[in-house]
Amino acid sequence: MKTRRLFLDERVSLKHGAGGRAMRALIQQVFTQGFIESRAGDIGLEAMDDGAALRLGDRWLVVTTDSHVIHPIFFPGGDIGRLAVAGTVNDLAMMGATEVLGLTCAVILEEGFARADLERIQKSVRDTCQEAGATVVTGDTKVMGKGELDGIVLNTTGFGLTERVVPDSGLRPGDRIIVTGTIGDHGFAILALRRGLGLEGDLRSDVAPLNGLIRGALGAGDGAVAAMKDPTRGGLASALCEMAQKSGVGIVLEELRVPVSPVVRSAGELLGIDPLHIANEGKAVLGVRPEAAERVLAALRAHPQGREAEIVGTCIDGHAGSVILDTGVGRRLLAEPEGEPLPRIC
Amino acid sequence: MKTRRLFLDERVSLKHGAGGRAMRALIQQVFTQGFIESRAGDIGLEAMDDGAALRLGDRWLVVTTDSHVIHPIFFPGGDIGRLAVAGTVNDLAMMGATEVLGLTCAVILEEGFARADLERIQKSVRDTCQEAGATVVTGDTKVMGKGELDGIVLNTTGFGLTERVVPDSGLRPGDRIIVTGTIGDHGFAILALRRGLGLEGDLRSDVAPLNGLIRGALGAGDGAVAAMKDPTRGGLASALCEMAQKSGVGIVLEELRVPVSPVVRSAGELLGIDPLHIANEGKAVLGVRPEAAERVLAALRAHPQGREAEIVGTCIDGHAGSVILDTGVGRRLLAEPEGEPLPRIC
Repeated sequence: MKTRRLFLDERVSLKHGAGGRAMRALIQQVFTQGFIESRAGDIGLEAMDDGAALRLGDRWLVVTTDSHVIHPIFFPGGDIGRLAVAGTVNDLAMMGATEVLGLTCAVILEEGFARADLERIQKSVRDTCQEAGATVVTGDTKVMGKGELDGIVLNTTGFGLTERVVPDSGLRPGDRIIVTGTIGDHGFAILALRRGLGLEGDLRSDVAPLNGLIRGALGAGDGAVAAMKDPTRGGLASALCEMAQKSGVGIVLEELRVPVSPVVRSAGELLGIDPLHIANEGKAVLGVRPEAAERVLAALRAHPQGREAEIVGTCIDGHAGSVILDTGVGRRLLAEPEGEPLPRIC
Repeated sequence: MKTRRLFLDERVSLKHGAGGRAMRALIQQVFTQGFIESRAGDIGLEAMDDGAALRLGDRWLVVTTDSHVIHPIFFPGGDIGRLAVAGTVNDLAMMGATEVLGLTCAVILEEGFARADLERIQKSVRDTCQEAGATVVTGDTKVMGKGELDGIVLNTTGFGLTERVVPDSGLRPGDRIIVTGTIGDHGFAILALRRGLGLEGDLRSDVAPLNGLIRGALGAGDGAVAAMKDPTRGGLASALCEMAQKSGVGIVLEELRVPVSPVVRSAGELLGIDPLHIANEGKAVLGVRPEAAERVLAALRAHPQGREAEIVGTCIDGHAGSVILDTGVGRRLLAEPEGEPLPRIC
């Protein structure tokens, strides 16, 4: 893949955890260097995909891990427990593993954390597991002292089996780009809550496990879906930039076709933040072979989570590694953000 | 398994993360309830073993997760990176999976964390992986604000395949108990460092990946090793109590046969803390069929990490679920500690 190197400062800052260019530079310069190489054919650390895929007989074991540090821990539409399970289930689904073999759940608590809050979060973990047909198979519990951790952190790791891995780098010129629904809902819900915008009633996080939706899309035709990614930290812009870079294609994104709810649009205008740059937790971006695009779109729309799915762009030969935003009145380069504008968004 | 219920307070306290009775009560009352049940035969969350084991064709996929919150992050004998990899590799090995298929590594950093420290930790992760024949296949990076997290937290999840799972509940009366070397080294090294005891030069953590050592022990005979556990938080006492309870046997522990280094013994006397209750990060407890005990002991001693292995106890019919300490002058019940006396020990 193409790498754009950033100078990495002497100290870690919030942008290094924000899902954009700065984070990728940190990972490439510090975390991916010097390990025993992945077995030939396996998708390992160096691929920097949503997870790893290891050959196991005639199938692939897909593995993904995420720590969840969201603040606040309860928000309209969800909480840290739902976020953890959905985030991990979705990363598995993005690589083609829509059946979850198991999840691990490691909890770190601050001394003094309320038992009632913990039970509420735990119920949410269970309910979201039920929704995704998944279960937690093992866990870990740690407690840090008062003031050593702000509340609670959850790590979830997931694994699943699939016969075909869908990478985030499989795009070819001509492929169509589909988003499965409105964008920006999660990020703006958190932002509104933190800033007391008074829009809390209308803005709700979209956090949800998408494996059922994705199963339907993958069932629309063998090889029809060439690449997938969930546009979390850094939003749709970051996800598309990464897919374009890894695939070595350009992507033309038609801004007017991207579904955005009216309340997200208002919040974005009020705050001067583009919904394209804001995290989602219940949406996916699919790169689809042109001849299968309408079929995949129909399969998505047949699922309650995909009713607002849209074809929003096309892959092109030129501008390899870049995303071109077609605003309806002109075209401009969609700069890859350094990172999500909001810390602790997931 | 037998459960001893503790009243769980309205707020989480340090003991709930300390590996003893209080932590088990929290896990049983809050974390293991209400999930989709494990498939018949699988070892899932309710078993509360070192990890999970899921049937995959004619083998088992073993999975384990741990967050590492140790303070300080650098200590004599190791650092948080070595601890994370060794801890996860050892949990896999304790269930019989001595070949690591892969590890995940999720890093949470405090804003302002020094890049040089991060690189030092990351080098240690790599070196310990090399030692264990393991590799990190995927990861995650999050950053929390200044004051929201004390430094760095690492979560490692590991997975491996094995043909035979060794549970922590397989003991039968007559089985012998083996520890693979001196106990208390990790906990006292951390304690001495934190309290400035002036013993830092002599006390070193034993943190190490044990999968090579355990592979040798398992090779000493099919089914010879009936149960295994690594005596981390809560020390040897906690590990034995848990094994006795889960297996429904009594264990007589011969105190004078338990290997303790002179400096750990001195530190223990100085601080009034029993090395039996202190965490280890490079030792294992094995329950072994009586006829195979000498053979397993010889296999352990043939490995550099097992030179000081000793047979330290025997399983009995009576006192089911309890550990009896034979001090050489008399016998008493070894009470199960509420938790490790030290917070953030691993």
